[in-house]
Amino acid sequence: MAGTIETRLKQLGLTLPAAATPVANYIPFVRTGNLIFVAGQIPLLNGAVHYHGIVGLDVTLEEAMNAARLCGLNLLAQAKAACDGDLDRITRVVKLTGFVAANAHFTDHPKVINGASDLMVEVFGDAGRHARVAVGAPSLPRGAPVEVDALFEVA
Amino acid sequence: MAGTIETRLKQLGLTLPAAATPVANYIPFVRTGNLIFVAGQIPLLNGAVHYHGIVGLDVTLEEAMNAARLCGLNLLAQAKAACDGDLDRITRVVKLTGFVAANAHFTDHPKVINGASDLMVEVFGDAGRHARVAVGAPSLPRGAPVEVDALFEVA
Amino acid sequence: MAGTIETRLKQLGLTLPAAATPVANYIPFVRTGNLIFVAGQIPLLNGAVHYHGIVGLDVTLEEAMNAARLCGLNLLAQAKAACDGDLDRITRVVKLTGFVAANAHFTDHPKVINGASDLMVEVFGDAGRHARVAVGAPSLPRGAPVEVDALFEVA
Repeated sequence: MAGTIETRLKQLGLTLPAAATPVANYIPFVRTGNLIFVAGQIPLLNGAVHYHGIVGLDVTLEEAMNAARLCGLNLLAQAKAACDGDLDRITRVVKLTGFVAANAHFTDHPKVINGASDLMVEVFGDAGRHARVAVGAPSLPRGAPVEVDALFEVA
Repeated sequence: MAGTIETRLKQLGLTLPAAATPVANYIPFVRTGNLIFVAGQIPLLNGAVHYHGIVGLDVTLEEAMNAARLCGLNLLAQAKAACDGDLDRITRVVKLTGFVAANAHFTDHPKVINGASDLMVEVFGDAGRHARVAVGAPSLPRGAPVEVDALFEVA
Repeated sequence: MAGTIETRLKQLGLTLPAAATPVANYIPFVRTGNLIFVAGQIPLLNGAVHYHGIVGLDVTLEEAMNAARLCGLNLLAQAKAACDGDLDRITRVVKLTGFVAANAHFTDHPKVINGASDLMVEVFGDAGRHARVAVGAPSLPRGAPVEVDALFEVA
């Protein structure tokens, strides 16, 4: 039987990507106590970086929000793997940290990272409401315009 | 009766700002276990960003330190809200992460973030001594020169 | 009698630097519950910053990886101090966050931070495998090309 969150994902028309394998000597998540720390996710779609460049120059604000949402879907894919496939075990999205590839003139980092934040609330409801950091970075791995990491609480 | 920390704030002549409402779909703090994760705070004063631009160009080092202190006051305002108004329940400032809007030539990130670090020690004494990260960012939300997040431990 | 991890360090030919004193009003680590948060470390060697500048411009990729490894050694030095000298008490490297001084064209942040990640796995084996974030920064404290912080779990 599908879990509550899986049903919600289906209702939202969302399909989680395959949990990506890190491009380096680390792992996608670590659980300690009731916390799951998920590694920074970039906007991977079918294994390829789906958006490239600097937000406001190479990537529009709307594209960047979609990129952040895609980071969020990848975070959920990792969280699902961390919960042995059962997202219902997540009791809280504790924190997201979002990095936006931007230059000195950019000011809309919060709007960009909303792409990931809104997704969490759509999927988990009130339990998806989280503390957050949104900041700029001159560049991100593999030319990604956005990178987001996450901290989840599990029962 | 005023708590110990409230009394200390009064002795220091400090007034906490109103806890700011996030400009996006997230919340200012989440508690999990004995930890309170507070969202990144920018130097808001009476609801407006009080400093703008790049440290070393648009903002002097001294102004940036004051901006970081203002971030710290906003962190304390959120922490107070998280503790139902009783800052005495905070047993430790665990960690601050400070982002400084800067260009490639800037090297004084630690001095800037001291504005927030010094505040924590003034207010909480030894319990205010924390682990810390201080780094540069090309730009920050709403043109702020500094953003600081915090992790507190509560009893 | 030397501990397991101390023996491993010796086998690897690694000597931990002296745990550095922060250049600001904070402390190098805080323990809360079973977690040790270690402050961001730059590539200090004998008290001096051993690499300077922007990766890809002033510092080669290989030098940057060595700088990240040196950050990792400094993280281990702090972790050892946090464990009263007994690194065997560390049960898990939970997370590393790595900042790389870079411009808009840089894409190899993961390769740089591998310098620290690989060290953790060499020293702790599977318990050294961690969640990770790797991002760019326009500049870092004291002109360092890399800064890495860490979260450890202890028994």
